[in-house]
Amino acid sequence: MRIAILGGTGDIGEGLALRWAFHADHEIVIGSRESDRAVTKAREYETELSSRGVDVTIDGLENPDATATADVVIAAVPAYHLVDTIESVAESLTAGTVLVSPAVGMRHDEAGMHYNRPGAGSVTALAADVTPEDVPVVGGFHNLAAGRLANLDVDLSMDVLLVGEDDDALETVAALTDAIDGLRPLEAGPIDNAAEVESLTPLLINLAEYNEGLHDVGVRFE
Amino acid sequence: MRIAILGGTGDIGEGLALRWAFHADHEIVIGSRESDRAVTKAREYETELSSRGVDVTIDGLENPDATATADVVIAAVPAYHLVDTIESVAESLTAGTVLVSPAVGMRHDEAGMHYNRPGAGSVTALAADVTPEDVPVVGGFHNLAAGRLANLDVDLSMDVLLVGEDDDALETVAALTDAIDGLRPLEAGPIDNAAEVESLTPLLINLAEYNEGLHDVGVRFE
Repeated sequence: MRIAILGGTGDIGEGLALRWAFHADHEIVIGSRESDRAVTKAREYETELSSRGVDVTIDGLENPDATATADVVIAAVPAYHLVDTIESVAESLTAGTVLVSPAVGMRHDEAGMHYNRPGAGSVTALAADVTPEDVPVVGGFHNLAAGRLANLDVDLSMDVLLVGEDDDALETVAALTDAIDGLRPLEAGPIDNAAEVESLTPLLINLAEYNEGLHDVGVRFE
Repeated sequence: MRIAILGGTGDIGEGLALRWAFHADHEIVIGSRESDRAVTKAREYETELSSRGVDVTIDGLENPDATATADVVIAAVPAYHLVDTIESVAESLTAGTVLVSPAVGMRHDEAGMHYNRPGAGSVTALAADVTPEDVPVVGGFHNLAAGRLANLDVDLSMDVLLVGEDDDALETVAALTDAIDGLRPLEAGPIDNAAEVESLTPLLINLAEYNEGLHDVGVRFE
Protein backbone atom coordinates (compact mmCIF):
# COMPACT_ATOMS: atom_id res chain seq x y z
CA MET A 1 0.00 0.00 0.00
CA ARG A 2 1.26 3.49 -0.83
CA ILE A 3 0.81 5.97 2.02
CA ALA A 4 1.27 9.70 1.57
CA ILE A 5 2.01 11.59 4.78
CA LEU A 6 1.26 15.27 4.25
CA GLY A 7 3.08 17.17 6.94
CA GLY A 8 5.41 14.20 6.95
CA THR A 9 8.16 16.47 8.21
CA GLY A 10 6.38 17.02 11.57
CA ASP A 11 6.57 14.80 14.63
CA ILE A 12 3.54 12.54 14.17
CA GLY A 13 4.27 12.31 10.45
CA GLU A 14 7.85 11.27 11.15
CA GLY A 15 6.78 8.58 13.60
CA LEU A 16 4.17 7.09 11.28
CA ALA A 17 6.58 7.12 8.32
CA LEU A 18 9.35 5.38 10.25
CA ARG A 19 7.04 2.83 11.87
CA TRP A 20 5.22 1.87 8.66
CA ALA A 21 8.51 1.47 6.82
CA PHE A 22 10.07 -0.42 9.75
CA HIS A 23 7.27 -2.75 10.90
CA ALA A 24 5.50 -3.24 7.56
CA ASP A 25 6.59 -2.92 3.98
CA HIS A 26 4.29 -0.08 3.05
CA GLU A 27 5.58 2.40 0.51
CA ILE A 28 5.90 5.81 2.13
CA VAL A 29 5.83 9.19 0.44
CA ILE A 30 6.51 12.32 2.47
CA GLY A 31 4.49 15.35 1.39
CA SER A 32 5.28 18.95 2.19
CA ARG A 33 4.46 22.38 0.81
CA GLU A 34 8.04 22.51 -0.49
CA SER A 35 9.47 19.50 -2.25
CA ASP A 36 13.02 20.27 -1.04
CA ARG A 37 11.92 19.93 2.56
CA ALA A 38 10.06 16.70 1.77
CA VAL A 39 13.11 15.22 0.02
CA THR A 40 15.45 16.21 2.87
CA LYS A 41 13.22 14.52 5.45
CA ALA A 42 12.73 11.45 3.25
CA ARG A 43 16.52 11.05 3.07
CA GLU A 44 16.78 11.43 6.88
CA TYR A 45 14.19 8.71 7.40
CA GLU A 46 15.94 6.43 4.88
CA THR A 47 19.22 6.89 6.77
CA GLU A 48 17.56 6.16 10.13
CA LEU A 49 15.93 3.02 8.72
CA SER A 50 19.10 1.91 6.95
CA SER A 51 21.03 2.11 10.25
CA ARG A 52 18.57 -0.52 11.49
CA GLY A 53 19.01 -2.77 8.48
CA VAL A 54 15.89 -1.61 6.65
CA ASP A 55 16.81 -0.40 3.19
CA VAL A 56 13.86 1.33 1.61
CA THR A 57 13.24 4.23 -0.71
CA ILE A 58 11.05 6.97 0.70
CA ASP A 59 9.80 9.57 -1.74
CA GLY A 60 9.62 13.27 -0.93
CA LEU A 61 7.18 15.34 -2.98
CA GLU A 62 5.01 18.42 -2.87
CA ASN A 63 1.67 17.64 -1.22
CA PRO A 64 -0.42 17.37 -4.44
CA ASP A 65 2.14 15.07 -6.12
CA ALA A 66 2.41 12.96 -2.97
CA THR A 67 -1.37 12.65 -2.88
CA ALA A 68 -1.88 11.74 -6.53
CA THR A 69 -0.40 8.25 -6.32
CA ALA A 70 -1.39 7.31 -2.77
CA ASP A 71 -3.92 4.75 -1.56
CA VAL A 72 -4.09 6.44 1.84
CA VAL A 73 -3.34 10.09 2.60
CA ILE A 74 -2.55 11.14 6.19
CA ALA A 75 -3.14 14.87 6.71
CA ALA A 76 -0.61 15.14 9.54
CA VAL A 77 -0.63 18.94 9.64
CA PRO A 78 -1.60 21.30 12.47
CA ALA A 79 -5.35 21.95 12.75
CA TYR A 80 -5.00 25.52 11.50
CA HIS A 81 -3.39 24.28 8.23
CA LEU A 82 -5.83 21.40 7.73
CA VAL A 83 -8.42 23.05 5.48
CA ASP A 84 -5.76 24.76 3.31
CA THR A 85 -3.83 21.52 2.98
CA ILE A 86 -6.84 19.41 1.99
CA GLU A 87 -8.01 22.06 -0.47
CA SER A 88 -4.54 22.15 -2.01
CA VAL A 89 -4.64 18.40 -2.74
CA ALA A 90 -8.38 18.02 -3.48
CA GLU A 91 -7.87 17.70 -7.25
CA SER A 92 -5.20 15.04 -6.75
CA LEU A 93 -7.40 12.85 -4.56
CA THR A 94 -8.90 10.03 -6.57
CA ALA A 95 -12.15 8.27 -5.69
CA GLY A 96 -11.49 5.53 -3.15
CA THR A 97 -8.37 7.09 -1.70
CA VAL A 98 -8.76 7.20 2.10
CA LEU A 99 -8.02 10.51 3.82
CA VAL A 100 -6.97 10.26 7.49
CA SER A 101 -7.18 13.26 9.83
CA PRO A 102 -5.08 13.16 13.02
CA ALA A 103 -5.26 16.92 13.74
CA VAL A 104 -6.61 18.34 17.01
CA GLY A 105 -7.38 22.01 17.66
CA MET A 106 -6.18 23.15 21.07
CA ARG A 107 -5.75 26.33 23.03
CA HIS A 108 -3.61 26.96 26.07
CA ASP A 109 -4.32 28.95 29.22
CA GLU A 110 -2.80 29.16 32.69
CA ALA A 111 -4.40 25.88 33.77
CA GLY A 112 -3.27 23.84 30.78
CA MET A 113 -4.35 22.68 27.34
CA HIS A 114 -7.94 22.69 26.19
CA TYR A 115 -9.85 21.25 23.30
CA ASN A 116 -10.75 24.02 20.88
CA ARG A 117 -13.84 22.60 19.27
CA PRO A 118 -14.41 23.99 15.78
CA GLY A 119 -17.84 25.09 14.57
CA ALA A 120 -18.04 21.95 12.41
CA GLY A 121 -18.21 19.91 15.66
CA SER A 122 -14.70 18.44 15.46
CA VAL A 123 -11.54 18.79 13.42
CA THR A 124 -12.35 15.47 11.73
CA ALA A 125 -15.77 16.84 10.72
CA LEU A 126 -14.03 19.95 9.36
CA ALA A 127 -11.73 17.70 7.30
CA ALA A 128 -14.72 15.75 6.00
CA ASP A 129 -16.51 18.98 5.05
CA VAL A 130 -13.72 20.09 2.69
CA THR A 131 -12.79 16.65 1.30
CA PRO A 132 -14.36 15.56 -2.02
CA GLU A 133 -17.44 13.42 -1.42
CA ASP A 134 -16.07 10.27 -3.05
CA VAL A 135 -13.06 10.26 -0.70
CA PRO A 136 -13.88 8.66 2.68
CA VAL A 137 -12.46 10.42 5.74
CA VAL A 138 -11.29 8.62 8.87
CA GLY A 139 -10.25 10.44 12.06
CA GLY A 140 -7.36 8.66 13.72
CA PHE A 141 -3.88 8.79 15.28
CA HIS A 142 -4.86 11.82 17.39
CA ASN A 143 -3.60 10.42 20.66
CA LEU A 144 -0.23 8.95 19.87
CA ALA A 145 2.79 9.80 21.96
CA ALA A 146 4.80 11.35 19.12
CA GLY A 147 8.26 11.04 20.63
CA ARG A 148 7.86 7.36 21.44
CA LEU A 149 6.34 6.69 18.03
CA ALA A 150 9.36 8.21 16.27
CA ASN A 151 11.88 6.36 18.44
CA LEU A 152 12.19 2.88 16.97
CA ASP A 153 14.00 1.69 20.12
CA VAL A 154 10.82 2.11 22.15
CA ASP A 155 8.17 -0.59 22.40
CA LEU A 156 4.73 0.92 22.01
CA SER A 157 1.66 -0.11 23.95
CA MET A 158 -1.06 2.32 22.99
CA ASP A 159 -4.55 2.38 21.60
CA VAL A 160 -5.47 4.28 18.45
CA LEU A 161 -9.05 5.54 18.24
CA LEU A 162 -10.73 5.69 14.85
CA VAL A 163 -13.90 7.47 13.77
CA GLY A 164 -15.54 7.34 10.37
CA GLU A 165 -18.59 6.34 8.40
CA ASP A 166 -17.07 4.20 5.63
CA ASP A 167 -16.52 0.62 6.79
CA ASP A 168 -13.93 -0.23 4.13
CA ALA A 169 -11.93 2.89 4.92
CA LEU A 170 -12.10 2.14 8.66
CA GLU A 171 -10.90 -1.39 7.97
CA THR A 172 -7.98 -0.09 5.90
CA VAL A 173 -6.87 2.31 8.64
CA ALA A 174 -7.36 -0.32 11.35
CA ALA A 175 -5.10 -2.67 9.37
CA LEU A 176 -2.48 0.06 9.00
CA THR A 177 -2.65 0.61 12.77
CA ASP A 178 -2.31 -3.10 13.46
CA ALA A 179 0.73 -3.21 11.20
CA ILE A 180 2.68 -1.16 13.76
CA ASP A 181 3.79 -3.37 16.67
CA GLY A 182 2.18 -2.25 19.93
CA LEU A 183 -0.65 -0.18 18.45
CA ARG A 184 -4.22 -1.42 18.80
CA PRO A 185 -7.02 0.12 16.72
CA LEU A 186 -10.35 0.77 18.47
CA GLU A 187 -13.45 2.14 16.79
CA ALA A 188 -15.19 5.09 18.41
CA GLY A 189 -18.11 5.32 15.99
CA PRO A 190 -19.07 7.85 13.31
CA ILE A 191 -17.47 11.28 12.86
CA ASP A 192 -20.18 12.74 15.12
CA ASN A 193 -18.23 11.09 17.96
CA ALA A 194 -14.91 12.69 16.97
CA ALA A 195 -15.01 15.55 19.52
CA GLU A 196 -14.76 13.10 22.43
CA VAL A 197 -11.77 11.42 20.73
CA GLU A 198 -9.99 14.67 19.93
CA SER A 199 -10.58 15.98 23.51
CA LEU A 200 -8.26 13.27 24.76
CA THR A 201 -5.18 14.97 23.28
CA PRO A 202 -5.16 18.06 25.56
CA LEU A 203 -5.90 15.75 28.51
CA LEU A 204 -2.77 13.69 27.71
CA ILE A 205 -0.73 16.90 27.63
CA ASN A 206 -2.18 18.05 30.97
CA LEU A 207 -1.43 14.69 32.60
CA ALA A 208 2.19 14.89 31.44
CA GLU A 209 2.36 18.43 32.85
CA TYR A 210 0.94 17.60 36.29
CA ASN A 211 2.41 14.14 37.02
CA GLU A 212 6.07 13.44 37.49
CA GLY A 213 7.17 10.42 35.53
CA LEU A 214 4.52 10.77 32.85
CA HIS A 215 6.01 12.08 29.60
CA ASP A 216 4.81 11.67 26.06
CA VAL A 217 1.76 9.82 27.35
CA GLY A 218 -0.25 7.20 25.48
CA VAL A 219 -3.54 5.67 26.47
CA ARG A 220 -4.95 2.14 26.87
CA PHE A 221 -8.58 1.21 27.32
CA GLU A 222 -9.29 -2.02 29.13
CA MET B 1 -11.56 8.81 57.86
CA ARG B 2 -15.34 9.14 57.61
CA ILE B 3 -16.60 9.25 54.02
CA ALA B 4 -20.18 10.21 53.15
CA ILE B 5 -21.33 8.95 49.77
CA LEU B 6 -24.34 11.00 48.68
CA GLY B 7 -26.10 9.00 46.02
CA GLY B 8 -24.52 6.02 47.69
CA THR B 9 -27.36 3.88 46.41
CA GLY B 10 -26.24 4.34 42.77
CA ASP B 11 -23.63 2.32 40.92
CA ILE B 12 -20.49 4.42 41.40
CA GLY B 13 -21.52 5.09 45.00
CA GLU B 14 -21.96 1.38 45.63
CA GLY B 15 -18.55 0.53 44.17
CA LEU B 16 -16.73 3.20 46.16
CA ALA B 17 -18.51 2.23 49.40
CA LEU B 18 -17.69 -1.47 49.00
CA ARG B 19 -14.09 -0.88 47.93
CA TRP B 20 -13.27 1.59 50.72
CA ALA B 21 -14.76 -0.70 53.33
CA PHE B 22 -13.07 -3.76 51.79
CA HIS B 23 -9.56 -2.49 50.94
CA ALA B 24 -9.21 0.13 53.67
CA ASP B 25 -10.85 0.64 57.02
CA HIS B 26 -12.55 3.89 56.22
CA GLU B 27 -15.89 4.52 57.89
CA ILE B 28 -18.60 4.72 55.26
CA VAL B 29 -21.93 6.50 55.48
CA ILE B 30 -24.45 6.14 52.68
CA GLY B 31 -26.50 9.27 52.00
CA SER B 32 -29.77 9.41 50.15
CA ARG B 33 -32.74 11.74 49.87
CA GLU B 34 -34.70 9.17 51.87
CA SER B 35 -33.12 7.63 54.93
CA ASP B 36 -35.02 4.33 54.44
CA ARG B 37 -33.36 3.83 51.10
CA ALA B 38 -29.95 4.71 52.53
CA VAL B 39 -30.40 2.24 55.40
CA THR B 40 -31.55 -0.55 53.07
CA LYS B 41 -28.49 -0.11 50.85
CA ALA B 42 -26.15 0.15 53.83
CA ARG B 43 -27.47 -3.22 55.09
CA GLU B 44 -26.97 -4.74 51.61
CA TYR B 45 -23.37 -3.55 51.50
CA GLU B 46 -22.75 -4.86 55.04
CA THR B 47 -24.08 -8.28 53.99
CA GLU B 48 -21.91 -8.32 50.85
CA LEU B 49 -18.83 -7.38 52.87
CA SER B 50 -19.65 -9.83 55.64
CA SER B 51 -19.83 -12.67 53.09
CA ARG B 52 -16.18 -11.84 52.37
CA GLY B 53 -15.16 -11.81 56.00
CA VAL B 54 -15.27 -8.05 56.45
CA ASP B 55 -17.60 -7.17 59.32
CA VAL B 56 -18.23 -3.44 59.35
CA THR B 57 -21.04 -1.10 60.21
CA ILE B 58 -22.16 1.15 57.38
CA ASP B 59 -24.49 3.99 58.29
CA GLY B 60 -27.45 5.01 56.15
CA LEU B 61 -28.71 8.56 56.59
CA GLU B 62 -30.44 11.39 54.81
CA ASN B 63 -27.93 13.43 52.79
CA PRO B 64 -27.60 16.37 55.25
CA ASP B 65 -27.09 14.04 58.24
CA ALA B 66 -24.60 11.95 56.28
CA THR B 67 -22.71 15.11 55.36
CA ALA B 68 -22.59 16.64 58.86
CA THR B 69 -20.12 14.14 60.33
CA ALA B 70 -18.02 13.38 57.27
CA ASP B 71 -14.41 14.32 56.49
CA VAL B 72 -14.98 13.73 52.80
CA VAL B 73 -18.29 13.96 50.94
CA ILE B 74 -18.66 12.25 47.55
CA ALA B 75 -21.53 13.77 45.54
CA ALA B 76 -22.15 10.57 43.54
CA VAL B 77 -25.41 11.76 42.02
CA PRO B 78 -26.36 12.29 38.37
CA ALA B 79 -25.26 15.68 36.95
CA TYR B 80 -28.85 16.96 36.84
CA HIS B 81 -29.24 16.40 40.61
CA LEU B 82 -25.83 17.79 41.53
CA VAL B 83 -26.73 21.41 42.27
CA ASP B 84 -29.86 20.45 44.23
CA THR B 85 -27.93 17.87 46.21
CA ILE B 86 -25.07 20.19 47.13
CA GLU B 87 -27.49 22.98 48.06
CA SER B 88 -29.43 20.57 50.27
CA VAL B 89 -26.29 19.74 52.28
CA ALA B 90 -24.56 23.14 52.17
CA GLU B 91 -25.43 24.01 55.76
CA SER B 92 -24.13 20.65 56.97
CA LEU B 93 -20.74 21.06 55.29
CA THR B 94 -18.12 22.23 57.78
CA ALA B 95 -14.98 24.15 56.84
CA GLY B 96 -12.26 21.76 55.74
CA THR B 97 -14.59 18.99 54.66
CA VAL B 98 -13.61 17.94 51.12
CA LEU B 99 -16.36 17.70 48.52
CA VAL B 100 -15.70 15.34 45.61
CA SER B 101 -17.64 15.60 42.35
CA PRO B 102 -17.66 12.53 40.05
CA ALA B 103 -20.69 13.60 37.97
CA VAL B 104 -20.55 14.02 34.17
CA GLY B 105 -23.27 15.60 32.04
CA MET B 106 -23.94 13.65 28.86
CA ARG B 107 -26.40 13.56 26.01
CA HIS B 108 -27.10 10.76 23.58
CA ASP B 109 -27.73 10.84 19.85
CA GLU B 110 -27.70 8.28 17.05
CA ALA B 111 -23.90 8.20 16.92
CA GLY B 112 -23.34 7.72 20.62
CA MET B 113 -22.75 9.56 23.88
CA HIS B 114 -21.50 13.13 24.01
CA TYR B 115 -20.14 15.41 26.67
CA ASN B 116 -22.77 17.99 27.56
CA ARG B 117 -20.63 20.84 28.76
CA PRO B 118 -22.46 23.08 31.23
CA GLY B 119 -22.24 26.86 31.06
CA ALA B 120 -19.96 26.83 34.11
CA GLY B 121 -17.31 25.12 31.93
CA SER B 122 -17.57 21.68 33.51
CA VAL B 123 -19.73 19.81 36.00
CA THR B 124 -16.90 20.08 38.54
CA ALA B 125 -16.89 23.88 38.09
CA LEU B 126 -20.67 23.86 38.57
CA ALA B 127 -20.21 21.91 41.82
CA ALA B 128 -17.55 24.39 42.98
CA ASP B 129 -19.84 27.33 42.16
CA VAL B 130 -22.57 26.13 44.55
CA THR B 131 -20.31 24.76 47.32
CA PRO B 132 -19.51 27.02 50.29
CA GLU B 133 -16.18 28.80 49.79
CA ASP B 134 -14.42 27.21 52.76
CA VAL B 135 -15.12 23.70 51.42
CA PRO B 136 -12.54 22.65 48.79
CA VAL B 137 -13.93 20.81 45.75
CA VAL B 138 -12.09 18.04 43.91
CA GLY B 139 -13.33 16.53 40.65
CA GLY B 140 -12.61 12.82 40.56
CA PHE B 141 -13.80 9.26 39.96
CA HIS B 142 -15.51 10.28 36.69
CA ASN B 143 -14.02 7.52 34.61
CA LEU B 144 -14.38 4.40 36.71
CA ALA B 145 -15.88 1.25 35.26
CA ALA B 146 -18.79 1.07 37.71
CA GLY B 147 -19.61 -2.61 37.34
CA ARG B 148 -16.04 -3.74 37.89
CA LEU B 149 -15.65 -1.35 40.81
CA ALA B 150 -18.69 -2.83 42.57
CA ASN B 151 -17.61 -6.43 41.94
CA LEU B 152 -15.09 -7.27 44.64
CA ASP B 153 -14.05 -10.40 42.72
CA VAL B 154 -12.56 -8.26 39.96
CA ASP B 155 -9.01 -6.91 40.09
CA LEU B 156 -8.97 -3.29 39.02
CA SER B 157 -6.28 -1.68 36.91
CA MET B 158 -7.47 1.84 36.19
CA ASP B 159 -6.38 5.41 36.55
CA VAL B 160 -8.43 8.00 38.42
CA LEU B 161 -8.05 11.59 37.25
CA LEU B 162 -8.29 14.38 39.81
CA VAL B 163 -8.78 18.12 39.32
CA GLY B 164 -8.81 20.77 42.01
CA GLU B 165 -7.12 23.86 43.38
CA ASP B 166 -6.57 22.89 47.03
CA ASP B 167 -3.40 20.83 47.46
CA ASP B 168 -4.41 19.30 50.80
CA ALA B 169 -7.79 18.27 49.42
CA LEU B 170 -6.15 16.77 46.31
CA GLU B 171 -3.75 14.86 48.54
CA THR B 172 -6.62 13.52 50.64
CA VAL B 173 -8.52 12.28 47.57
CA ALA B 174 -5.35 10.86 46.00
CA ALA B 175 -4.75 8.88 49.21
CA LEU B 176 -8.34 7.62 49.17
CA THR B 177 -7.81 6.51 45.56
CA ASP B 178 -4.54 4.77 46.39
CA ALA B 179 -6.32 2.94 49.22
CA ILE B 180 -8.30 0.94 46.66
CA ASP B 181 -6.14 -1.82 45.16
CA GLY B 182 -5.63 -1.30 41.43
CA LEU B 183 -6.59 2.38 41.28
CA ARG B 184 -3.90 4.96 40.56
CA PRO B 185 -4.57 8.67 41.13
CA LEU B 186 -3.28 11.12 38.51
CA GLU B 187 -3.57 14.90 38.73
CA ALA B 188 -5.01 16.74 35.76
CA GLY B 189 -4.57 20.27 37.10
CA PRO B 190 -7.03 22.92 38.32
CA ILE B 191 -10.79 22.79 37.83
CA ASP B 192 -10.35 24.77 34.60
CA ASN B 193 -9.04 21.46 33.16
CA ALA B 194 -12.09 19.45 34.26
CA ALA B 195 -13.91 19.50 30.90
CA GLU B 196 -11.16 17.41 29.26
CA VAL B 197 -11.39 14.92 32.15
CA GLU B 198 -15.18 14.70 32.09
CA SER B 199 -15.19 14.29 28.26
CA LEU B 200 -13.51 10.93 28.73
CA THR B 201 -16.67 9.36 30.18
CA PRO B 202 -18.80 9.48 26.98
CA LEU B 203 -15.74 8.27 25.04
CA LEU B 204 -15.47 5.19 27.29
CA ILE B 205 -19.16 4.46 26.66
CA ASN B 206 -18.71 4.85 22.89
CA LEU B 207 -15.71 2.51 22.87
CA ALA B 208 -17.71 -0.14 24.73
CA GLU B 209 -20.50 0.30 22.18
CA TYR B 210 -18.33 -0.02 19.07
CA ASN B 211 -15.78 -2.66 20.09
CA GLU B 212 -16.60 -6.26 20.84
CA GLY B 213 -14.91 -7.44 23.98
CA LEU B 214 -14.76 -4.01 25.61
CA HIS B 215 -17.34 -3.67 28.37
CA ASP B 216 -17.35 -1.43 31.41
CA VAL B 217 -14.12 0.14 30.18
CA GLY B 218 -11.45 1.75 32.35
CA VAL B 219 -8.47 3.76 31.21
CA ARG B 220 -4.72 3.71 31.84
CA PHE B 221 -2.24 6.41 30.87
CA GLU B 222 1.33 5.31 30.29
